[in-house]
Amino acid sequence: MIKAETSVRFNSLWRTFRTYSSMEYSGKNIRDYSKYVSMKPVSKLRNTTSPDFVSSPHSKLQSLIWQRPIQNVLVTKKPWTSTTRNAMVQFITHLHDSYPEMNVIVQPDVLEEIAQDFRSRPSQNPNEPHILFTGEEEEIVSKADLLVTLGGDGTILRGVSMFGNRQVPPVLAFSLGTLGFLLPFDFQEHKKVFEKVISSRAKCLHRTRLECQLVRNGEKKDMKSLATSLHAMNDIFLHRGDSPHLANLDVFIDGEFMTRTTGDGLAFGTPTGSTAYSLSAGGSIVSPLVPCILLTPICPRSLSFRPLILPHTSHIKVRIGSKNSQGPANNVVKLSVDGIPQPDLRVGDEIHVVNEVGTIYLNGSQITSTSNKEDVIHRKRSIKNSGIYCIARTENDWTSGINELLGFNSSFRFTRHT
Amino acid sequence: MIKAETSVRFNSLWRTFRTYSSMEYSGKNIRDYSKYVSMKPVSKLRNTTSPDFVSSPHSKLQSLIWQRPIQNVLVTKKPWTSTTRNAMVQFITHLHDSYPEMNVIVQPDVLEEIAQDFRSRPSQNPNEPHILFTGEEEEIVSKADLLVTLGGDGTILRGVSMFGNRQVPPVLAFSLGTLGFLLPFDFQEHKKVFEKVISSRAKCLHRTRLECQLVRNGEKKDMKSLATSLHAMNDIFLHRGDSPHLANLDVFIDGEFMTRTTGDGLAFGTPTGSTAYSLSAGGSIVSPLVPCILLTPICPRSLSFRPLILPHTSHIKVRIGSKNSQGPANNVVKLSVDGIPQPDLRVGDEIHVVNEVGTIYLNGSQITSTSNKEDVIHRKRSIKNSGIYCIARTENDWTSGINELLGFNSSFRFTRHT
Amino acid sequence: MIKAETSVRFNSLWRTFRTYSSMEYSGKNIRDYSKYVSMKPVSKLRNTTSPDFVSSPHSKLQSLIWQRPIQNVLVTKKPWTSTTRNAMVQFITHLHDSYPEMNVIVQPDVLEEIAQDFRSRPSQNPNEPHILFTGEEEEIVSKADLLVTLGGDGTILRGVSMFGNRQVPPVLAFSLGTLGFLLPFDFQEHKKVFEKVISSRAKCLHRTRLECQLVRNGEKKDMKSLATSLHAMNDIFLHRGDSPHLANLDVFIDGEFMTRTTGDGLAFGTPTGSTAYSLSAGGSIVSPLVPCILLTPICPRSLSFRPLILPHTSHIKVRIGSKNSQGPANNVVKLSVDGIPQPDLRVGDEIHVVNEVGTIYLNGSQITSTSNKEDVIHRKRSIKNSGIYCIARTENDWTSGINELLGFNSSFRFTRHT
Amino acid sequence: MIKAETSVRFNSLWRTFRTYSSMEYSGKNIRDYSKYVSMKPVSKLRNTTSPDFVSSPHSKLQSLIWQRPIQNVLVTKKPWTSTTRNAMVQFITHLHDSYPEMNVIVQPDVLEEIAQDFRSRPSQNPNEPHILFTGEEEEIVSKADLLVTLGGDGTILRGVSMFGNRQVPPVLAFSLGTLGFLLPFDFQEHKKVFEKVISSRAKCLHRTRLECQLVRNGEKKDMKSLATSLHAMNDIFLHRGDSPHLANLDVFIDGEFMTRTTGDGLAFGTPTGSTAYSLSAGGSIVSPLVPCILLTPICPRSLSFRPLILPHTSHIKVRIGSKNSQGPANNVVKLSVDGIPQPDLRVGDEIHVVNEVGTIYLNGSQITSTSNKEDVIHRKRSIKNSGIYCIARTENDWTSGINELLGFNSSFRFTRHT
Repeated sequence: MIKAETSVRFNSLWRTFRTYSSMEYSGKNIRDYSKYVSMKPVSKLRNTTSPDFVSSPHSKLQSLIWQRPIQNVLVTKKPWTSTTRNAMVQFITHLHDSYPEMNVIVQPDVLEEIAQDFRSRPSQNPNEPHILFTGEEEEIVSKADLLVTLGGDGTILRGVSMFGNRQVPPVLAFSLGTLGFLLPFDFQEHKKVFEKVISSRAKCLHRTRLECQLVRNGEKKDMKSLATSLHAMNDIFLHRGDSPHLANLDVFIDGEFMTRTTGDGLAFGTPTGSTAYSLSAGGSIVSPLVPCILLTPICPRSLSFRPLILPHTSHIKVRIGSKNSQGPANNVVKLSVDGIPQPDLRVGDEIHVVNEVGTIYLNGSQITSTSNKEDVIHRKRSIKNSGIYCIARTENDWTSGINELLGFNSSFRFTRHT
Repeated sequence: MIKAETSVRFNSLWRTFRTYSSMEYSGKNIRDYSKYVSMKPVSKLRNTTSPDFVSSPHSKLQSLIWQRPIQNVLVTKKPWTSTTRNAMVQFITHLHDSYPEMNVIVQPDVLEEIAQDFRSRPSQNPNEPHILFTGEEEEIVSKADLLVTLGGDGTILRGVSMFGNRQVPPVLAFSLGTLGFLLPFDFQEHKKVFEKVISSRAKCLHRTRLECQLVRNGEKKDMKSLATSLHAMNDIFLHRGDSPHLANLDVFIDGEFMTRTTGDGLAFGTPTGSTAYSLSAGGSIVSPLVPCILLTPICPRSLSFRPLILPHTSHIKVRIGSKNSQGPANNVVKLSVDGIPQPDLRVGDEIHVVNEVGTIYLNGSQITSTSNKEDVIHRKRSIKNSGIYCIARTENDWTSGINELLGFNSSFRFTRHT
Repeated sequence: MIKAETSVRFNSLWRTFRTYSSMEYSGKNIRDYSKYVSMKPVSKLRNTTSPDFVSSPHSKLQSLIWQRPIQNVLVTKKPWTSTTRNAMVQFITHLHDSYPEMNVIVQPDVLEEIAQDFRSRPSQNPNEPHILFTGEEEEIVSKADLLVTLGGDGTILRGVSMFGNRQVPPVLAFSLGTLGFLLPFDFQEHKKVFEKVISSRAKCLHRTRLECQLVRNGEKKDMKSLATSLHAMNDIFLHRGDSPHLANLDVFIDGEFMTRTTGDGLAFGTPTGSTAYSLSAGGSIVSPLVPCILLTPICPRSLSFRPLILPHTSHIKVRIGSKNSQGPANNVVKLSVDGIPQPDLRVGDEIHVVNEVGTIYLNGSQITSTSNKEDVIHRKRSIKNSGIYCIARTENDWTSGINELLGFNSSFRFTRHT
Repeated sequence: MIKAETSVRFNSLWRTFRTYSSMEYSGKNIRDYSKYVSMKPVSKLRNTTSPDFVSSPHSKLQSLIWQRPIQNVLVTKKPWTSTTRNAMVQFITHLHDSYPEMNVIVQPDVLEEIAQDFRSRPSQNPNEPHILFTGEEEEIVSKADLLVTLGGDGTILRGVSMFGNRQVPPVLAFSLGTLGFLLPFDFQEHKKVFEKVISSRAKCLHRTRLECQLVRNGEKKDMKSLATSLHAMNDIFLHRGDSPHLANLDVFIDGEFMTRTTGDGLAFGTPTGSTAYSLSAGGSIVSPLVPCILLTPICPRSLSFRPLILPHTSHIKVRIGSKNSQGPANNVVKLSVDGIPQPDLRVGDEIHVVNEVGTIYLNGSQITSTSNKEDVIHRKRSIKNSGIYCIARTENDWTSGINELLGFNSSFRFTRHT
């Protein structure tokens, strides 16, 4: 299923391109780019090919090994900035010039945005326009061998969220000047880095995500409407939002009651998300290599709610408790997944948070009245491929990252008790 | 090698017992306990038999399975309190009465302390005194199949430290009234629990330790003098101690410079130790199931030294930097391993901290000018057995522990903005 | 000006009481309470008489000395709980029985709520009903010599807020079972305590409030709509609320730029409010005797925004900065005064926070394009009487309060490193 | 009383200077500086003249007004750095050249250190050497009208501590390149700033100090040996130091038991000291204008010991409790005043901490078995002059200071969720 909005946009784009091909067009502001760019349906491409990720006893990273040559490269970008638009055209041109066997996939809205920016044809094929493959998101995600993002952390989060529950291809992230917690490459290196990636000489950092499910009235809620945010690379949080009344949240871990918290809310973070909201709320900084779930209280009404680091196999359940003050408006808690607001939660609702690699409590857990044996088996089969493999610069990106990005442990600029 | 002190005490004890057996003794304050207790050399016992620890996909704990019947039970206790002395006599009497095939091992000083407290002979063997095996620590640790501790967390730490670099047998901890972070059983349950343990129906929580090595003048220092504290179940910390001058410590992770800290010091903790000194210094509470190393600053002179959670495969090196103020007394930093003070560190010394399960950087690391191939191979072979298997009460001991022991997330006793 | 809602309720009440007096009434559920209770207009009473507050070099408190006998006692309560309703009837009955010269004032809605609960006439005046004075809030606040509150901290905050910018009479707070940060007396002591208060033997703790003003488009905004919340006993805070985008707030102190914060928001607290929201956000606990303003960040995106304790004469200005993401809905920040939501703030708006005792920067500050000389002079004259005098139990209420209410410095329930 | 060491050094210096005047001297390394510098006894100077400190309703600072012309300028410096030595010679030369009526006072050891660095005679008096007044510390402190310090915060602390319980003259601090929490002037401005100070155009920030007294066996301990550190500009702290056992400290405030803390220790800070040790231990940053005492726990074994801000009139008593482990070495707690170690404290000892402006509990308090009426009267008389008046650059030095020195609220170097 694709989102209605995307579908409409896609169809209108398709029409536009057809029009360009069949008639003379001479508008004032809109250039006829059909001689430089041409669109093809992504459905024509072969399906995704997955690489192997090979561990070594002497490395924290996995080697990215392609058993079959990579063919389909999905390129996404931060919307509506000229810097990323230029970079994208530059990157696609490089792919077409240097790797004519590669297929470049873009989202329909991206295609629409950048089409006019092409000014030349591929050097290796000067009689043909640049071919860009696009289509509905459901098709795109079934074809991509590699995800290339141009922008910041938000661009990566959005690119990854497109894949929903599917396996995400390796992520190659480029930043344009800015830095990011997800530790992208500088775009200036794009030629060298891309060559390394496709020739199986790159290494990946494995990041896992959290999964979030809503149980309302004892039933697992169909969360298709939340499809893009079911998984969180950074964090899932519950917050009282605008309500003047503090949230009351009962936390259960692996089926046992842990604590009731009264306060602004709770944040559940991946290690990757330890530098996002959890950090602001007072949590520790956690290496992405530590398998765990962070539970960090947000402004709790307690002196003694120290942040917790839980096993990554934990099954966390939060039940929305009633507030001291009644009234429908007051009985609502806000849910946010990787910063994207979700539908309001009501008293009695349960949120279940687990790592995507699974929990030891899935069998017999309270998550699912609907999940059945097959579900569980499917989960186990899928574990091998779960998580996001992010192409890494060096073994110690993370260490330098927290120094450069966070200003970690800045010293004072003078000497005490000289 | 055993500690000289232990050796002397052991020999004098041996003499005492011989004396009792060979002559009439009639002192005022010293009762002739030879008809109730008799000592035998631990060296006569068969060597340690190790159980299997079996994982299950649906449990956080390992099942403790004895392939051969357990024979040799080492019982240790908190020194010099009458409560634990009574409990020990009660426990040993129970073992002798109910399991005549078991051998009870005690340390020489414990034997000396409790000998006079026996008032009866074993019920199954009423013509013989209670037989207690003892000997030098080196022999004791090579014979014990199970370590039973009577006391608090300190008693467990001391009991475990006796084994130095050797594999520690499963630990069955009983507390006497007090609670403990290492989550002991109540002594009142000792009969039921012991039966469960020896009949392979108990489950274990696996805790790993940190290892600490000192490099001075570029050479690995012979740390035999530190043998009992080479491993830390809780934490290793560096502190300026009494010095009026802050410590300057350069921290390297996996061979790369991470940060220089100026302050009271640094604590490196296991997840087990997350509720010890690290907690006091502001660290998060970490489940013992999360494989990681905690790096928590102690009163740093920085606003931005947030505690770190590092991968358990990390190799951390700390180099003692010079202080602002010169003078021999000022160039010293204190090292403490599980709370036990170690020899002073000097400017230029390096401390290397790794998890006992090993680090990906052991090969080619800066730790060892002396370590050779065999060392590394030995390390790898030993990994299978490393760590401490603590017999656990329930799957969720930890959750209830932090609530009961720490007063975690205590709520206020009234309502804000009623 | 009074709030429309209050006025309507008051008029309908007036009618009800008149009806009872003039005709036979026989409903099913509504009892004719006119023979036990009678209403009189508060406007008939003499105006407020203010006591003196006398300091002593050996006390942290001020003695409450009445130069003229106290006459008009305003009694308020937590709404709609039977416990407080019963307590109120009991308290009023005691006043009428023991102090026939006293006039009891209640709010119209309170009168409506409790009227049916009177079951007897005053013992000293058995032929007459209980006389309760009421009227519009504006009149009430100009007549009260003493404010008695029955309930928790919220009841005190609401009672005090009724007075807006006027001088608040001494506050005598009783709790009914629960505890409170504002350290009320137990209701069981009400007879003894009240006698002490009116006979000039009580002592007061002086608490000051914060004032908040909004400047929009460079003009001081008429905040009459905010009249009840212009002053804060606890805190004033700015928060992003439901917005997925962090707030950007520029903070100026005494006219100089201090810092820009990006995060959930900022809390400004009185020392009294140091145990309210500021505590949850990580602020220190501040004695109400320390003249200061707390500036505590709420989940800031910085490792180094330590809470600040500013002089109570500070003039703090916060300007709402634009967010990274555009769109009208995203450019809004929530303002809350003592927990009561205020109209949304927009980009460019300024909030000015000062202590009610004044700031050294009022002259020539950026607060007021409209304020003139008279304003300033008026401020200075009023300083003598500003703040809230809360009748205190003992010199050290606060110390015992933070122990009893907050569970301050709870020790662990066992011994580390036994 | 002066310290023996100082006295000896002073006498030897005196002899050296006499020698130079009476005979030909031709050493290899020691230049005959007698033609450039000459020493005179400080005892010849008139006694200290004190300025007035005049408050204004529109300033946070006090104007420094000299009723009589300033005559005696005490100049101190950070020891043994060539930068400060050069600056000192430059500063003294400027004084002698521009203000021949001024007398420059230096400590004997400083005179010894800098004497050889003078290379010229005063321009206004070219036939005479530079006259420097010196003598025993007791005499020096009774003559100085102004204290000028060249160096960092430590130099100021040491300069001020010379005055012990006496009133400290206004402090004019210059730094040499480095910054400092006490917010010194840049030395490059020395001419302009000095002129401003002596012509009554400077403003002062008033900082108060803490006082510390030891009661042992119920008696106030003669602390003459601690004379230089009886007062703390920054902080007084108790710490377990090297001991492996945590300190147990019972805290009483204004005569009432407040809490028992188990941990590394406790820090008591002035607002000035809020950026010193208290900051490292997690305390808030407090403006020097807020009259208060900071009580900050150092690594407490509790989740709920939030730092406290107490009234500056508080009388804090700490009693050293016994430790869990016995033994003489373990029953010791370290006391430090402004970073200077004091004699060890023992179980049962009490430390009393008050602000130098006095406490409401002095009368009838437990401090003193020896203090009598006169003491108290003396205290009250002296309050007017107590505290340190530091000459300030601007009204808002503090605000800019915490930004520049501490890196307060540093933002991350990129955008989250781009």
